[in-house]
Amino acid sequence: MSAINRYSFIAAFEFTPFLPYNDALHCLAVGVSMLQELPALAFGELTDVVAFLMEIDKLKSIQRRTKVLGTQRQENTAEHSWHFAVAAMALAPYAGDKVDINRVTQMALVHDIVEIDAGDVLVYDLAGRHAVHDLEETAAVRLFGLLPEPQRQHFHQLWLEYEAGETADAQFALLLDRLMPVLMNLHNQGQSWVENGIRLEQVLTRNAFIGDVYPELWEHLKHHLNQAQQNGWLK
Amino acid sequence: MSAINRYSFIAAFEFTPFLPYNDALHCLAVGVSMLQELPALAFGELTDVVAFLMEIDKLKSIQRRTKVLGTQRQENTAEHSWHFAVAAMALAPYAGDKVDINRVTQMALVHDIVEIDAGDVLVYDLAGRHAVHDLEETAAVRLFGLLPEPQRQHFHQLWLEYEAGETADAQFALLLDRLMPVLMNLHNQGQSWVENGIRLEQVLTRNAFIGDVYPELWEHLKHHLNQAQQNGWLK
Repeated sequence: MSAINRYSFIAAFEFTPFLPYNDALHCLAVGVSMLQELPALAFGELTDVVAFLMEIDKLKSIQRRTKVLGTQRQENTAEHSWHFAVAAMALAPYAGDKVDINRVTQMALVHDIVEIDAGDVLVYDLAGRHAVHDLEETAAVRLFGLLPEPQRQHFHQLWLEYEAGETADAQFALLLDRLMPVLMNLHNQGQSWVENGIRLEQVLTRNAFIGDVYPELWEHLKHHLNQAQQNGWLK
Repeated sequence: MSAINRYSFIAAFEFTPFLPYNDALHCLAVGVSMLQELPALAFGELTDVVAFLMEIDKLKSIQRRTKVLGTQRQENTAEHSWHFAVAAMALAPYAGDKVDINRVTQMALVHDIVEIDAGDVLVYDLAGRHAVHDLEETAAVRLFGLLPEPQRQHFHQLWLEYEAGETADAQFALLLDRLMPVLMNLHNQGQSWVENGIRLEQVLTRNAFIGDVYPELWEHLKHHLNQAQQNGWLK
């Protein structure tokens, strides 16, 4: 199967007319990982890196629940990762001495690449998050494994550190990843909360760790979250 | 005008049924910058940063000519910026001792934020690129000016350095920014070249500086670009 045919095959999934768009994109996400890996264009020492970069283009087709502000389009994981990485840069002065913002930025860029094989699961879907864990580990091995060393190890270690959430860098990264959709909901009439029937208690419980990492931010968030419930944006 | 009304106004542009989609998005890009800035949600010392992060969400609605591989959807500038930033990480071992990959990654994240006000112009449209220059400078002042110090200065300086293209970091960043759509075209039957009637000579001329920065990469690119012309993907 040539590279062109492979992408035509993927496109056929995406434009299947008898499926709702979300289901078609689910097929896209799941189907991609089952396809044969193909000979890449020759780029000398860069051949494997180029193949990796073309493979991760698929992250632009993984949809999240949050919609781009003022539109009806769900944001995808690639543009979310950009937004999260810029947030790391913009919040650098508040991160504290223990946090290396360059490492947080790099975590933002790689943290969701595994969703190419494993898909995106809502942060409040605890059973779904648990179920997808093994899929994500397999995805990390496959996707980062497309890179040569030392990049493979660097990307994989960053992702493992982010997932473990134990270092100061990983905790600040997790805070930002969780913060972004909350901020977007607060500026978009609680769009994804309303559409998914989310309760105030869920948001407060799942994000309480923000209070440990950045207490002042958490105080402001709690105020706005309570207001959001009064607005009818959270149950 | 409330934040909600402002976004409804933007959404009205995007879904105007009597305009082709590209024209509607052009209205979106140009219209946004004319709208009144609004009181942001209170977040203490983070208030301005939060307002900036919500404002730059609009980069997800700026369309480029390149389509996501295997789809009919044009990529937007936010997801392109993510792809470019990951490319910086993945190509770090080949960048040479003079390049600081963390600064290149940060340039990738901020380099196109000005397109929120100025729009995206094809790299081969030299007159268009020239015409948009002043718009971009005004956009940089407005958009980075939403940030408090020292972030405002940091973001603006990074963008100016990238635009000037004189430092080793900026030259490597420019190389990657130019490389990504070329790689995508080589893996997508020359999609944006074909759709915009681009000639091989244009691609070779506009990207010749890659040969100064990374000669081995340029040799491989030239080979594949000649092959692309033989395939009918370039005039």
